[in-house]
Amino acid sequence: MAPAGPRSGDAIFASVERVNAELFTLTYGAIVRQLLTDLEEVDEVNKQLDQMGYNIGIRLIDEFLAKSNVSRCTDFKETTEVIAKVGFKMFLGVGASVTNWDAEGTCCSIVLEDNPLVDFVELPDTCQGLYYCNVLSGVIRGALEMVSMKTEVTWLRDVLRGDDVFELQVKLIKQVPEEYPYKDDE
Amino acid sequence: MAPAGPRSGDAIFASVERVNAELFTLTYGAIVRQLLTDLEEVDEVNKQLDQMGYNIGIRLIDEFLAKSNVSRCTDFKETTEVIAKVGFKMFLGVGASVTNWDAEGTCCSIVLEDNPLVDFVELPDTCQGLYYCNVLSGVIRGALEMVSMKTEVTWLRDVLRGDDVFELQVKLIKQVPEEYPYKDDE
Repeated sequence: MAPAGPRSGDAIFASVERVNAELFTLTYGAIVRQLLTDLEEVDEVNKQLDQMGYNIGIRLIDEFLAKSNVSRCTDFKETTEVIAKVGFKMFLGVGASVTNWDAEGTCCSIVLEDNPLVDFVELPDTCQGLYYCNVLSGVIRGALEMVSMKTEVTWLRDVLRGDDVFELQVKLIKQVPEEYPYKDDE
Repeated sequence: MAPAGPRSGDAIFASVERVNAELFTLTYGAIVRQLLTDLEEVDEVNKQLDQMGYNIGIRLIDEFLAKSNVSRCTDFKETTEVIAKVGFKMFLGVGASVTNWDAEGTCCSIVLEDNPLVDFVELPDTCQGLYYCNVLSGVIRGALEMVSMKTEVTWLRDVLRGDDVFELQVKLIKQVPEEYPYKDDE
C-alpha cells in the first residue's frame, strides 16, 4: 500500500469531476451508430471500439494511479481485483466482481451487473454480432498493458445478447518485468 | 415540485447519475480521432460531429425537461437562458452565459469559459479547420428543434483556436407553432 492505503472507489468517484451519465451514454451510442454506418461490417466495428478503448485505457491508467492511491500492483490477481472494485466504480460509478479463476491464477472473469453504456440500448437484428461495450475490453487491455501486463480480454456474457450479466474474461498472456517500456515521461 | 418553478442546474447536476469527466473527455477524443481517420476531410468531421450532436440533442431534451422542472419555454430568449444556465450545468457541470442579443431578439451568443470536452486537447496543425466541440452545436440545434425552434448554431470563438472563451452563436430561423410534431406521448 502507498502510504495511507488505497481509497475506495466510492470515495474517489465522489471526489472527481463528473458529467451527466445520460450524456455519456448517448454520446457513446452516437459513436457506435457512426461506426456502424461508416464501417458496415460488425466485426470491424468491434475491432474499432476495442482499439478506441485501448487508446483510452493507456491514458486513463494515469488518472487512476494518481487519484486512487493504489500502489502499482505487481500481482495479476490483485490487479484485477483493483480494476473491478476501484476502477469501474471510479470511472463508471458501478462496481464489478472478479470470479472464475483458473488454477494457474492467470485467467479470471470480471462480472458487471449494471453498466451505464447500455441504458436505453437494444440491438437490432442486423447487429447481433456486435459487442456493443467493446470499448470496455479495450480500456482494460490498454490500462493493463501500461502496468506491464499483456492480456487478452473477451466477452463471455452480455446483457444485450440476453445474458443476465456482463462477463469479461481477462487472460494474462505475458507479464513484462518492471521496466515500463511504453511509459515515457510526460 | 413542478409548479414551484425550475430547479437550479447545480441541484439537478448533483442529483443525476454521473460518470467520470475524464472518461467522457477521453471517449469524446477517441471519437474525434476516429472520425479524422475515417473521413480524412476536416469539413466532413465537423459535419459528422454536428450530426452526432443533433441525434444526442433530440434525446437529451427529454431528460432535460423531465429533471429540470422547466416548463416548456415558448420564448426564444427565455429558452436560450435556460440552456445556458441550467442545461450546460446539468449535463457538463459547467455554466454558460448568454450575450450579444440582436435588436430583434432572434440571435444571441452562448459563451462558455470552460468545457470538459477540451481537457488535454491540442489541435495539430493539420486540423486547424476542425471545430473540435462541434457536437455541442448539434446538441443545441437538436434540442431546440424538439421544442419547435429551428436554429442555426455556429462557432464564433473557440479556445482551441486561440480565443479566450467558447462562443456559440444561436440564430432562430423559424419557430413552429405549438403542435410538437416530433413529440409522441411516451
